[in-house]
Amino acid sequence: MKVGVLTGGGDCPGLNAVIRSVVRKGVQEYGFEFVGLRDGWLGALQGNVVPLDISSVRGILPRGGTILGSSRTNPFKHEDGVQRIRDTLAAHQVDALVVIGGEDTLGVATELSRQGVDLVGVPKTIDNDVSGTDYTFGFDTAVGIATEAIDRLHTTAESHMRTLVVEVMGRHSGWIALHAGVAGGANVILIPERPFDIDQVCAWVKNRFKIHYAPIVVAAEGAVPIEGQMVLKDRTVDEFGHVRLSGIGEWLAQEIEERTGTDARTTVLGHVQRGGTPSAFDRWLATRFGLHAVDAVKDGDYGKLVALRGTQIIRIPLDGTRTKTKLVDPSLYDEFEVFFG
Amino acid sequence: MKVGVLTGGGDCPGLNAVIRSVVRKGVQEYGFEFVGLRDGWLGALQGNVVPLDISSVRGILPRGGTILGSSRTNPFKHEDGVQRIRDTLAAHQVDALVVIGGEDTLGVATELSRQGVDLVGVPKTIDNDVSGTDYTFGFDTAVGIATEAIDRLHTTAESHMRTLVVEVMGRHSGWIALHAGVAGGANVILIPERPFDIDQVCAWVKNRFKIHYAPIVVAAEGAVPIEGQMVLKDRTVDEFGHVRLSGIGEWLAQEIEERTGTDARTTVLGHVQRGGTPSAFDRWLATRFGLHAVDAVKDGDYGKLVALRGTQIIRIPLDGTRTKTKLVDPSLYDEFEVFFG
Amino acid sequence: MKVGVLTGGGDCPGLNAVIRSVVRKGVQEYGFEFVGLRDGWLGALQGNVVPLDISSVRGILPRGGTILGSSRTNPFKHEDGVQRIRDTLAAHQVDALVVIGGEDTLGVATELSRQGVDLVGVPKTIDNDVSGTDYTFGFDTAVGIATEAIDRLHTTAESHMRTLVVEVMGRHSGWIALHAGVAGGANVILIPERPFDIDQVCAWVKNRFKIHYAPIVVAAEGAVPIEGQMVLKDRTVDEFGHVRLSGIGEWLAQEIEERTGTDARTTVLGHVQRGGTPSAFDRWLATRFGLHAVDAVKDGDYGKLVALRGTQIIRIPLDGTRTKTKLVDPSLYDEFEVFFG
Amino acid sequence: MKVGVLTGGGDCPGLNAVIRSVVRKGVQEYGFEFVGLRDGWLGALQGNVVPLDISSVRGILPRGGTILGSSRTNPFKHEDGVQRIRDTLAAHQVDALVVIGGEDTLGVATELSRQGVDLVGVPKTIDNDVSGTDYTFGFDTAVGIATEAIDRLHTTAESHMRTLVVEVMGRHSGWIALHAGVAGGANVILIPERPFDIDQVCAWVKNRFKIHYAPIVVAAEGAVPIEGQMVLKDRTVDEFGHVRLSGIGEWLAQEIEERTGTDARTTVLGHVQRGGTPSAFDRWLATRFGLHAVDAVKDGDYGKLVALRGTQIIRIPLDGTRTKTKLVDPSLYDEFEVFFG
Repeated sequence: MKVGVLTGGGDCPGLNAVIRSVVRKGVQEYGFEFVGLRDGWLGALQGNVVPLDISSVRGILPRGGTILGSSRTNPFKHEDGVQRIRDTLAAHQVDALVVIGGEDTLGVATELSRQGVDLVGVPKTIDNDVSGTDYTFGFDTAVGIATEAIDRLHTTAESHMRTLVVEVMGRHSGWIALHAGVAGGANVILIPERPFDIDQVCAWVKNRFKIHYAPIVVAAEGAVPIEGQMVLKDRTVDEFGHVRLSGIGEWLAQEIEERTGTDARTTVLGHVQRGGTPSAFDRWLATRFGLHAVDAVKDGDYGKLVALRGTQIIRIPLDGTRTKTKLVDPSLYDEFEVFFG
Repeated sequence: MKVGVLTGGGDCPGLNAVIRSVVRKGVQEYGFEFVGLRDGWLGALQGNVVPLDISSVRGILPRGGTILGSSRTNPFKHEDGVQRIRDTLAAHQVDALVVIGGEDTLGVATELSRQGVDLVGVPKTIDNDVSGTDYTFGFDTAVGIATEAIDRLHTTAESHMRTLVVEVMGRHSGWIALHAGVAGGANVILIPERPFDIDQVCAWVKNRFKIHYAPIVVAAEGAVPIEGQMVLKDRTVDEFGHVRLSGIGEWLAQEIEERTGTDARTTVLGHVQRGGTPSAFDRWLATRFGLHAVDAVKDGDYGKLVALRGTQIIRIPLDGTRTKTKLVDPSLYDEFEVFFG
Repeated sequence: MKVGVLTGGGDCPGLNAVIRSVVRKGVQEYGFEFVGLRDGWLGALQGNVVPLDISSVRGILPRGGTILGSSRTNPFKHEDGVQRIRDTLAAHQVDALVVIGGEDTLGVATELSRQGVDLVGVPKTIDNDVSGTDYTFGFDTAVGIATEAIDRLHTTAESHMRTLVVEVMGRHSGWIALHAGVAGGANVILIPERPFDIDQVCAWVKNRFKIHYAPIVVAAEGAVPIEGQMVLKDRTVDEFGHVRLSGIGEWLAQEIEERTGTDARTTVLGHVQRGGTPSAFDRWLATRFGLHAVDAVKDGDYGKLVALRGTQIIRIPLDGTRTKTKLVDPSLYDEFEVFFG
Repeated sequence: MKVGVLTGGGDCPGLNAVIRSVVRKGVQEYGFEFVGLRDGWLGALQGNVVPLDISSVRGILPRGGTILGSSRTNPFKHEDGVQRIRDTLAAHQVDALVVIGGEDTLGVATELSRQGVDLVGVPKTIDNDVSGTDYTFGFDTAVGIATEAIDRLHTTAESHMRTLVVEVMGRHSGWIALHAGVAGGANVILIPERPFDIDQVCAWVKNRFKIHYAPIVVAAEGAVPIEGQMVLKDRTVDEFGHVRLSGIGEWLAQEIEERTGTDARTTVLGHVQRGGTPSAFDRWLATRFGLHAVDAVKDGDYGKLVALRGTQIIRIPLDGTRTKTKLVDPSLYDEFEVFFG
């Protein structure tokens, strides 16, 4: 049996840990052969296929990124995309695929699976917004990095009595902002799921200064103010129909300065959140996802996605996940409002 | 309403995060007053009670240890222990307690609750071995510290072609050893739940050297060899009837050296694993435990323990937890055997 | 003898370590009394003076920021500034000052010293650009944070074959960029001391892609292109007469994208570099600066600045330092050109 | 010109950074060819020589250990050792060597140099005890790891009112203990250069408990009590004629418990201090050592050792370094006594 492995979408700490455990268990326990498809679906389209054996995965567990490369290529945007993928798999005698990716990559996998390609999916997103799994790997690392940054900003905020706005990843969901904001002791947490009132934000900021501590505002990059609070030129509308800003952090700092008459600065953490060595939790989760994915291949249980439920790894149909982004539940957000202001 | 808070047993990153969120929500949302009982049940016995308000919990979220101190005092070992606790609560008009602790502290809480003391429990142990909750806070921090140490040891192991044995915490359960061993890419993981065969360990070590990589052996402090493999003078029997060694790490290194003729060294991580700032995950979990515990007090829902189930915080009866230690399931351990040797 | 302590300018990891060692040695060994002047020269102007004893400095060694607060207030911009400072010192019977600050704060100290105020200076800047001392505390911490960020960005850069530009602190000098760039294995390092040719930068970027590795460009915030390479509207002229950009990182990413036809992204580390716990080196240096500063006070050796020379702490006249910023030597920069491209 | 590179002695973060910069500059700027001698002098004796080019050193800058392996082999203990080394160099047409190592490895290099082998030395020891250089790489990383461990132990010490003894590396010199002890805010620091009085240590411990903070004792592994304070069976005499203990940390904890009647525990950091990614400072220093070493080869300036003096890299004769270990100066140690107790 020969299995192909590919990683698609934005990179994410833990990808290499999945590849390693898929290959280690597949080779040692099931006698599978493996190949890697380079750069996500692009390699599948172009026939860019590399050998993948135990020596190729040695030492990669603690390394960020992906040894297979990645891309955002969507084969369904190419007229003969599916056929070209079939050709590649046939040319290399690949019997089944392990597809590691986020919403887009798994969406492609779902459709290919419907069309008869044997594959198993592994959910991947630092944003933690894939439905059907409690957590995705990469998320814990991103939250850890953002929390450490917030810890550092506290001292500057307090020494200078100045608001510090931290913009973290999360275009459609506020998981990183909420977890890092709570863990970092932020005074305001803004997430895409809950449009914010800039007047309320400024009231919290002023209240915080009143008790002689400087405020930290954590904002997901997709956080948006309520209707009417944005200058028109800053507005765009994304594919979900949500109003969107580029640089919400910068906008917040400017508004806070203007409306409260106190200093404010922004830090945009950016790609730092998705690089580097995975946290212990992410290595554990990614390793287990890989082991269970290769088990599913062994069982011929295709069209499935491995997922975390409590402390168990389960298999769920690929269908259920692609349809919706897992958003932060309003009641969970409200749990933490006692810390605001 | 006046609520007392106490922390008992070994210290654990996240204790202060619980205290902070209990007090913040209790004061701001429910108008409660709080006092702290110093040094676990000892303060309850001796009437060592300190005021606890919002200013006392400021800035403690990222700090390890406990601002209330801790001890292993068991009031049931004092003839009039329960009466003295009742006296302390009465003297300070304390209506209910939030008790943060591990097996022993919660065992006392269970019995006190049966005798009519109004209280809510919060599980705490870096060992992760409290039944009824998916995880306890402090565990993720400990695993992270142990994993980072293993990462560092890999380079020494490989530069010198020498086995490195890492002894981590876990007297009765192997959770830290298993998680850190998997995350750190260990070649052998030894846990109390599964007595090991030293011949098998040495075979793994030799096999590893054969492929020109130096082995890392992670052993929980409570790991034990199978019957007959220990020199008699090293054996003791603990309260569970298990055979026990002091210094299993040292013993392993000696045996590996003697039996394989290759170098081996031991690192005992010790208290480093339980100190310092909590990880983002532990701050999140501890904060939520605190919020839900004070909600239970508000609801008058006494005799309960807050617990993590998936991503939800639930309340379970205090009873169920004290009776048994949550051990590593054999099937979970076996999942990772493909990485051994 | 009563000694006043103040911290001025931007905050910097290690300020608290200096305060602690000044007070510990002053009280325990010399029997001095201490007061703190709040918020730099502002507290000296306004008479905002707080007691400072051994209990106030307990536990502050590992904490970023400054327990005394800081500001950029310049007393010489107030008509009667010097007199108000004299009044404050007289009112509180302060015999001498320990002034911890950067170029501006030490400039004021120098002038006050000339006018007869007894004081000793301690150099502070995360930028490392104070002349007369090998290093300033805070710098090593900033370099460590920037290096860790670069480490993380490598994996993203490589997984996506995309240039990542990291903008680090350093308006007038490139010390952080050079040290972090070398330590992080950057492919291009741009510093204010050496105007860069954007064509050369793009040539390095393209060369790097040719050997299948993605480039990391580290730029000090004060880095500038050579004459003629900037769009006019982006130009400003700073107090040194240098051409200056806001957001050199963003500009570089745009230019690289346009000129090379490959993806580029920017990360602006910002205030994260100046907050949080100091590195071990910075705690060591700050502690020693404090010990030697209080020795200088004991000796009545006023008008001096403590400084690091090799592994020794020496005293130099306050004069020499304020006149010029310590820039990166061209020959030092050239040492590393072998790593570019 | 063909240059051989070898790394000898205990491993040390930064070795790979030296190798990388030697090869990068040698190949790119001087057109040299390189080979690596495996496992220190052992490879030179056995003719174990591997090719070393730019692709072999890619990505190794942040990695601990050494890609060339290491050993403690001394060729002068083999009758024909020198001749075998000459034969290896001749067989592979090696014109000159870059020898990276500590006291022993450099001692061999010195003697070989005297006998006409063309070589340049690079000092390496995490202990920082090579004379002639302000610092060696690896030391800053070790101090950082030890300081972080001490930071973590503070919270446990305080929560349980218990002395924690930390045993750090340093058999002959106390550099790591002194730097990490000062940076970590230890209450007692014990170094080999200054035999300690256990009664004084216990007095400091008791004093610390009196002010309600728990003591941290940092001891170099080579620290020894004054004459007469050790039980005879624990004594050994090392090659320097010093009295030596195995496990000074454990002995200290026992003595403190017995003499003060309070709890004490030990943590032995061990090999964790010498593994893993080098700190930014160590990468900077190691990179510069490599660049300057290959310059010396280019200049034909053999028999020299590169060294750090202030912020400059200089060349000193190999002779001067092997004769004596750089010890902690008594006056430097005394600087910090104000923090004891």
